Amino acid sequence: MTTIQPLVEAALGAVAAHAVSVQCAGRTDSGVHATYQVAHFDTDASRPARAWVLGANTHLPVNIAVTWARAVPAHFNARYSATARAYQYLIANRHPRAGLWHGRVGWEYHPLDVDAMRQAAVALLGRHDFSSFRGQGCQSRHPVRHLTQLDIAEQRGLLVFRVGANAFLLHMVRNIVGTLLEVGRGRREPAWVASVLAARDRRCAGMTAPAQGLYLTAVDYPTEFALPAPPRDALHLTAFSGVSYDG
Amino acid sequence: MTTIQPLVEAALGAVAAHAVSVQCAGRTDSGVHATYQVAHFDTDASRPARAWVLGANTHLPVNIAVTWARAVPAHFNARYSATARAYQYLIANRHPRAGLWHGRVGWEYHPLDVDAMRQAAVALLGRHDFSSFRGQGCQSRHPVRHLTQLDIAEQRGLLVFRVGANAFLLHMVRNIVGTLLEVGRGRREPAWVASVLAARDRRCAGMTAPAQGLYLTAVDYPTEFALPAPPRDALHLTAFSGVSYDG
Repeated sequence: MTTIQPLVEAALGAVAAHAVSVQCAGRTDSGVHATYQVAHFDTDASRPARAWVLGANTHLPVNIAVTWARAVPAHFNARYSATARAYQYLIANRHPRAGLWHGRVGWEYHPLDVDAMRQAAVALLGRHDFSSFRGQGCQSRHPVRHLTQLDIAEQRGLLVFRVGANAFLLHMVRNIVGTLLEVGRGRREPAWVASVLAARDRRCAGMTAPAQGLYLTAVDYPTEFALPAPPRDALHLTAFSGVSYDG
Repeated sequence: MTTIQPLVEAALGAVAAHAVSVQCAGRTDSGVHATYQVAHFDTDASRPARAWVLGANTHLPVNIAVTWARAVPAHFNARYSATARAYQYLIANRHPRAGLWHGRVGWEYHPLDVDAMRQAAVALLGRHDFSSFRGQGCQSRHPVRHLTQLDIAEQRGLLVFRVGANAFLLHMVRNIVGTLLEVGRGRREPAWVASVLAARDRRCAGMTAPAQGLYLTAVDYPTEFALPAPPRDALHLTAFSGVSYDG
């Protein structure tokens, strides 16, 4: 939230009539998108939830939208109270480039072997030391994460990698996708991914996939906070041209 | 194609090594998108189809993509040979604004009555004088068009109006959508739309829906030209957050 966070803070500050500092559930690197994000802040201003939402949106650029607000107990922390996060990574897998969707999907010219990537992905599910997929400069105290989902949906030239975990290391999703792509391109066997994980060495894994294909889509919290659930299928429909060059 | 056409002409001209002038199948007003478009041009340069595609894309901005090229007989005309066009109009129908999809979908705050709009749409199907839906400044010789499709798909807060006809008058899709929205908002009865059509008077219809929700998605030609078919479901998946404000 390098660029979005100060905008949200300024908008909420305008509603609160005092300076506001937010902490968000998951950082998104420059170029990464979010269809969902949760942030908390402290305030002594008393406003109805609706006033926080409508007021903040009035002060935000049109491409950022606050969708709900809720009073939470003092021990709630958007980052540390979160029990799970989900990301999706989109890749246009076809000859012509994404055109209208440039900057919003990754792009892979050659047909990828999706079944091989699915086979390789299984080794990453569960609780593991993800040092091999940890970006340099990661501030986390330890490299162990519990990966609960890693599957690939395929739809007319668009691949959607769906990744869920209790939490993620820096660049972890992009490094997992970049590693699976090596398998999808046929440069590595599916079993190679398990050996990358076991090595606990970032130099063994594939390249970091570009930021532009990545979307933060969900953050979960304990039910005690009674927060709205993230939308199902936040990434679903709009416009993606699946035309193929056949000339 | 006010802004895109000169870019395509410059790119094709660079490949042809002579000035190129294109004619396209359907104009798209400023702010309207196209997931598909067909244009023809004359050239005495001899290049493989692949060279036209790859060469043009090298010279085009990354958000424009040429997807195929094909030599056609001299009597082919991208505009006048076309037998049918299809558009889709997207509306986010929910409380929070579109955020990430700003400029790519229309937005309607209040819940729309989709069944009433579907009921009203039936009156427009078939061959009619569409003067009531004809934008000012339309250059067409006559106002009669054959509407072959007008339905509304609904998906988690996103409405997709799918409109097909042999050809369209200026602003015809946006005026049809704007008129159906009056019914969807409950301001008019479904039967009103038939009376708008019968009046043959633009002043009777609803407002022109904003350009940003409109996509040209398909153009059809006689099989004698053996052109690639437009992609099915050109508008299908990427990211659209369907979250609802419930605070």
